[in-house]
Amino acid sequence: MNFTMVTYIIGWILQIESAFLLLPAIVGFFYKEADKSVIYIITALASFLVGFLIKLKKPKTRDLYTREGFATVAIGWIAMSLVGAAPFTATGEIPNYIDAVFESVSGFTTTGGSILNDVEALSHASLFWRSFTHWIGGMGVFVFIMAIFPIMGGYSINLMRAESTGPSVGKLVPRVQKTAKILYAIYLGLTVIGCIVYMICGMSFFEAATTIFGTVGTGGYGILNTSITSYSPAVQWAITVFMILSGINYSVYFCLLRRQFRDAFSISEVKWYIGIILVSTMMITINIRGLYASTGESIRHAAFQVGSIITTTGFSTTDFDMWPALSKTILVILMFIGACSGSTGGGMKISRWLILGKTIFKELSTLIHPRQVKKLHMDGHVLEHETIRSTNVYLASYFFLMLLSVLLISVDNFDFTTNFTGVVAMLNNIGPGLGLVGPTGNFSIFSNFSKIVLIFDMLAGRLELFPMLIILKPACWRKY
Amino acid sequence: MNFTMVTYIIGWILQIESAFLLLPAIVGFFYKEADKSVIYIITALASFLVGFLIKLKKPKTRDLYTREGFATVAIGWIAMSLVGAAPFTATGEIPNYIDAVFESVSGFTTTGGSILNDVEALSHASLFWRSFTHWIGGMGVFVFIMAIFPIMGGYSINLMRAESTGPSVGKLVPRVQKTAKILYAIYLGLTVIGCIVYMICGMSFFEAATTIFGTVGTGGYGILNTSITSYSPAVQWAITVFMILSGINYSVYFCLLRRQFRDAFSISEVKWYIGIILVSTMMITINIRGLYASTGESIRHAAFQVGSIITTTGFSTTDFDMWPALSKTILVILMFIGACSGSTGGGMKISRWLILGKTIFKELSTLIHPRQVKKLHMDGHVLEHETIRSTNVYLASYFFLMLLSVLLISVDNFDFTTNFTGVVAMLNNIGPGLGLVGPTGNFSIFSNFSKIVLIFDMLAGRLELFPMLIILKPACWRKY
Repeated sequence: MNFTMVTYIIGWILQIESAFLLLPAIVGFFYKEADKSVIYIITALASFLVGFLIKLKKPKTRDLYTREGFATVAIGWIAMSLVGAAPFTATGEIPNYIDAVFESVSGFTTTGGSILNDVEALSHASLFWRSFTHWIGGMGVFVFIMAIFPIMGGYSINLMRAESTGPSVGKLVPRVQKTAKILYAIYLGLTVIGCIVYMICGMSFFEAATTIFGTVGTGGYGILNTSITSYSPAVQWAITVFMILSGINYSVYFCLLRRQFRDAFSISEVKWYIGIILVSTMMITINIRGLYASTGESIRHAAFQVGSIITTTGFSTTDFDMWPALSKTILVILMFIGACSGSTGGGMKISRWLILGKTIFKELSTLIHPRQVKKLHMDGHVLEHETIRSTNVYLASYFFLMLLSVLLISVDNFDFTTNFTGVVAMLNNIGPGLGLVGPTGNFSIFSNFSKIVLIFDMLAGRLELFPMLIILKPACWRKY
Repeated sequence: MNFTMVTYIIGWILQIESAFLLLPAIVGFFYKEADKSVIYIITALASFLVGFLIKLKKPKTRDLYTREGFATVAIGWIAMSLVGAAPFTATGEIPNYIDAVFESVSGFTTTGGSILNDVEALSHASLFWRSFTHWIGGMGVFVFIMAIFPIMGGYSINLMRAESTGPSVGKLVPRVQKTAKILYAIYLGLTVIGCIVYMICGMSFFEAATTIFGTVGTGGYGILNTSITSYSPAVQWAITVFMILSGINYSVYFCLLRRQFRDAFSISEVKWYIGIILVSTMMITINIRGLYASTGESIRHAAFQVGSIITTTGFSTTDFDMWPALSKTILVILMFIGACSGSTGGGMKISRWLILGKTIFKELSTLIHPRQVKKLHMDGHVLEHETIRSTNVYLASYFFLMLLSVLLISVDNFDFTTNFTGVVAMLNNIGPGLGLVGPTGNFSIFSNFSKIVLIFDMLAGRLELFPMLIILKPACWRKY
């Protein structure tokens, strides 16, 4: 393990975060919350200083192999979350630091599940920071560093592998730095356009900015206790569209920008994504038709909730825990499916399900024609044995971690639906589950122990399991 | 597809079943239920005749490749269940034939989940038949045929692969027929010894016989509405022991019979099985201590329920749906774990979990040491790539089928816990779940549509997915 290189990069992370922390300070001054702003500034300074001190020890070599890449990303995310939680507690708005860490991890991992009973009691500065953590975590802070400062040279692919989503690394162009720049440009573009659209639909700038952070990051923190319920149908439709756009594989936008329209629309994952959204929306609309005044309203709530859950955003316009069992089950299954790989969304990702589905069909086919030799393909490429293996191991690890987490949090003695959907919502970075952690509930009911389990699950979900699992193995920390 | 060979074997199955159907007829005469006995005799004659007619067309070749093996077993089990259900409806005891098929499939697959509100209203003949189906299905009817009539020659391995449990075929000796004979001898031995022990503990012969069928087959049908609740602690402990013995890999008994004591106790799956039972029992005992009069009683209920669920039997001595969440969650996780491969138990099997666990550790290790080449081992043997792949595909198929089934039965609009644990209980051939299908409830609440879904799940669970999935593929039915 190249420890100096790892700490050096963590130093960078803390310094970048200190810059980000100045934004809520500015918001605080604007809304005459100077006391809160001061705390954000102090946190920023402290974070900068610690980062500076850590970086004094320069690494001798810049080698960053897989294990360092994965461990750095895991520790970087933990460090970032611990710092990001500090102002919540220092301002007195979230007195219990474990709650504050839960809130900050939920933000950075774009989960959006909260421990707050009254979101509206927060200062503007904290509301802004809370939503902004979604934006930082959505595309990833390591990707951000790569896009701006080319500090890692040829090894940055190992950081990108650990932080980006999906079963294989989606490099858009051969150079990692260039890819990171393009991804952030698209991300920024979606953010700005979305913010303008939200304002046209009637939101204030503050509302539009915080909401678009939660949308493009597929996070789900709102600034009202009722999430998106009280906004106009126009706003709700606009959010639906931008949620769905944010769950699409970003290579689609890249192809569109390069005018490769045929390539953009031929990605099978995206076709399945759109298909699943349409079918689920239709089924739920029919199923909940009796609960709302008009079919139009039913379609709006159905489309919003389907978009919100499949992209793992977690906004809500209605209490879907009151929907019939069929609709709720569709939502639980969408929680497992997740968004496209190479997007900011969480969950297992549609491409993983496609790979698993293909392996099942191949197995059945091999039973029928035992001597057949058949390679699996996706979008015209042969699926590498590596990719299939890592997808399988991912599913097994996911299943283990899910069952273990449900077991651990059951010590708090809540009902099975709450525990199960709570873990699924955390592990897939969605936000609300069903039962006591449904859209009208929150995660404050759990003990500190359970919150720590769920914090681990959120980080494991965002970083796609292996970075968080690898740091638990002592062998990871041994010197070469 | 060698159709004639498939139908020829199905003919055998029907004739064997007709012989089995004479046993409840004898029981009926003994208990002066001549009207019921007549129906069992008529069913037996009809089944024999249909089998005879089918067998008139002799197969030209005895070739039975994988696909025929799997398809034959799947269709054989469906045919056997349809015939086995007939007397329930013909006697008027289960008027709805779909309910009767549910009950019969639940019997043969050793699930033990019932649609009956009042088991005690059944005649002795039907109670006997219901429990006896567990015994037939436990070790498998194809294995039975192989043991008695060597009709398939060298191809019988493909039938054994489809019907026996676990990720790889557990041949005890090189010859399949010999293996089948040994397995049935051990099975019969356990049955006889268990029956005697139950009678010593105070059960009547009828009680002991029906209960031991449910025990060694890991089925779970009882002859009382309260399952095992009203029996003495001695009986409950005796059942606990025989349930746990029935979930052990039968190769342990084989080694013991050959006095290879060291081999018998070195199988890692069995060590894990015993370890999981001990730890779970201890945790539940502590967790439920307050609910019962003494620690002894808590241990008894905990050990009984752990043994009942991990072996997928499904007997109960208490309403565990009233236990605290931690205990209930342990039981749900045991549902997923299941018994040892090569036993009569269901579930995913401990050896599959061991294989999955090993692949996860190997993956993490490969991330740490990328150039490492490491083979996975179990009990001194290298784990074949084939076995690992089929275990992975099994998990993926299992997950797909589970989610799809929960979705389909949610149309009946019961709560999530009922639907989820109901499907898990069917797919793992356990019997009771939680909520409305808990130990005091039953599956009669579901619509016919949902019952058909659950029937499919029970068969898929017993035959370990692929035989039931393969017959859904049109390619399976094409001629060579």
